[in-house]
Amino acid sequence: MHSVASAPNKIILFGEHAVVYKKPAIAVAINKRAKVSIKNTKKDSTIIKCNDIGLHANINPKTYNIEFLEGKKGILNYILEVLKSHHDNSPIKIDISLEVPLGIGLGSSAAITVALIAALHNYHEKVIDKSSLSKKAHEIELKVQGAASPLDTAVSTYGGMIYLKDSNIEYIKPNIEGSFIVAYTPKPADTKKMVSLVKKKLEKYPNIVGNIIDTIGNVTKTAYELIKEGKFEKIGELMNINHGLLDSIGVSSSELSQMVYSARNAGALGSKITGAGGSGSIIAYCINNEDKVLNTLKSQWDAFKTKFSKDGVIIH
Amino acid sequence: MHSVASAPNKIILFGEHAVVYKKPAIAVAINKRAKVSIKNTKKDSTIIKCNDIGLHANINPKTYNIEFLEGKKGILNYILEVLKSHHDNSPIKIDISLEVPLGIGLGSSAAITVALIAALHNYHEKVIDKSSLSKKAHEIELKVQGAASPLDTAVSTYGGMIYLKDSNIEYIKPNIEGSFIVAYTPKPADTKKMVSLVKKKLEKYPNIVGNIIDTIGNVTKTAYELIKEGKFEKIGELMNINHGLLDSIGVSSSELSQMVYSARNAGALGSKITGAGGSGSIIAYCINNEDKVLNTLKSQWDAFKTKFSKDGVIIH
Repeated sequence: MHSVASAPNKIILFGEHAVVYKKPAIAVAINKRAKVSIKNTKKDSTIIKCNDIGLHANINPKTYNIEFLEGKKGILNYILEVLKSHHDNSPIKIDISLEVPLGIGLGSSAAITVALIAALHNYHEKVIDKSSLSKKAHEIELKVQGAASPLDTAVSTYGGMIYLKDSNIEYIKPNIEGSFIVAYTPKPADTKKMVSLVKKKLEKYPNIVGNIIDTIGNVTKTAYELIKEGKFEKIGELMNINHGLLDSIGVSSSELSQMVYSARNAGALGSKITGAGGSGSIIAYCINNEDKVLNTLKSQWDAFKTKFSKDGVIIH
Repeated sequence: MHSVASAPNKIILFGEHAVVYKKPAIAVAINKRAKVSIKNTKKDSTIIKCNDIGLHANINPKTYNIEFLEGKKGILNYILEVLKSHHDNSPIKIDISLEVPLGIGLGSSAAITVALIAALHNYHEKVIDKSSLSKKAHEIELKVQGAASPLDTAVSTYGGMIYLKDSNIEYIKPNIEGSFIVAYTPKPADTKKMVSLVKKKLEKYPNIVGNIIDTIGNVTKTAYELIKEGKFEKIGELMNINHGLLDSIGVSSSELSQMVYSARNAGALGSKITGAGGSGSIIAYCINNEDKVLNTLKSQWDAFKTKFSKDGVIIH
């Protein structure tokens, strides 16, 4: 039996941080994916490999003890939790390939989790609907991380665009032309630290930071309406506004700010921090000048080009 | 007769752009001044000199025609309007010295205008109270510029801190320790262009940009209260918030943003654009690390250190 499934990475277009305070957020799936392949093995151990990050682990299929480990344990925690919940105790060989680096806020752990649960169901010739898959994957993220937004696993399952509002998730598949250029700092964003920093500022200046969070909510809502009307080219200006608001609550940095302005000066329609900020990633939205923006960012930082994708999880 | 008067330059601490929409603003006088000296002359022409900017002009004292001009005409327009309103037709020699460059948004034209009106009244052995002086100087700015905030001439007249709210000007003389480091780009800010850009954004996104303008108002009000309570060291954080909000309405730039973050990384308590933005000046507030911040900024841009001053116009 050979079972293969893949699921998309995501980017947060609007609403990070404000989403913690019940404001809406928009996340979209991109055409970069995590792919999981499962095969039988005659060995005694379950073998997990991800060459993209130099991970090789042998696992006791009954006790889940790690017998051999090369590389960082990181995503292994997600894989072990999935195996405990969605596999029997037979040894298998799991191969993972990633198109986006881990730890840059583009939801690789969610994409791997969704793809692995889907591949395991297929391996066992079971069917799982998207709603259950999204829920099960979110449970895994909660177990491993302690806290997790349902956004990442929902996007990786359904693809397209997700509008999270008042704890309701709306799934839409609009047209969003052009490209998103992602650039990232060597140091990943520290989400917990950044969320706590914003919380402290809000407590200190409720009528300032509260207003800013409300305004980010308005930006997200406006962007959602424009995208639904097919006016996706107008989101660039709103991304710039959203970035300034994130800067005002203290989650930008010298480097993120330089990335954001380099992208705009090279011709991006808009650019902003994506995710928690402090360090980490920015996205720049381009309909023209895609390569110019990409090359400008690449001359100083790690960067790649990606596109909006309607595809969610796929059994190959 | 030899009459000498001087008046301070100003910096806008909080509220630029929002002040256009009736939100409060805070401006403070600094310990950098414009000094005007008036002497009799036996020549037929009124002679105007400002060595700091390479200005030398001979003026017909009756017709106000320019008979000779070396340097840029710029501030001559203010001087001629003052002479028309506050001097007779006798030739005089006017020497101006400036401690702050022209055109970087620190109110040199207002400081020159206030000092010149004061020096002329003194020359003619007339007395002018501060309220009239501030009003007359504002009239001159209106004549020359077409539009002008009363803030600059009020600060140059009274010194200290000015809180403009609902068209009322409140004059206070708080203690503000520490230094303001000013850095500026080669290209001055284009106030008209920036004000019009914000207006367009407000018309396009009233419930976003309107909120941001309200929030800048809240920042200014909070800063005013903290300063009145003697908690001036706390304004740094509010300056950072104000900067992000200015960024969000599109009046920052790659260069201004780099200046602002360089100052913070070098140890400033806070930093922001001062004035219209787009290009122009930033201020960084420091209680410690003054020289480190100054030198960091000076390594890439023009910069100088200044302090809050309670002194307004002075007859020397």
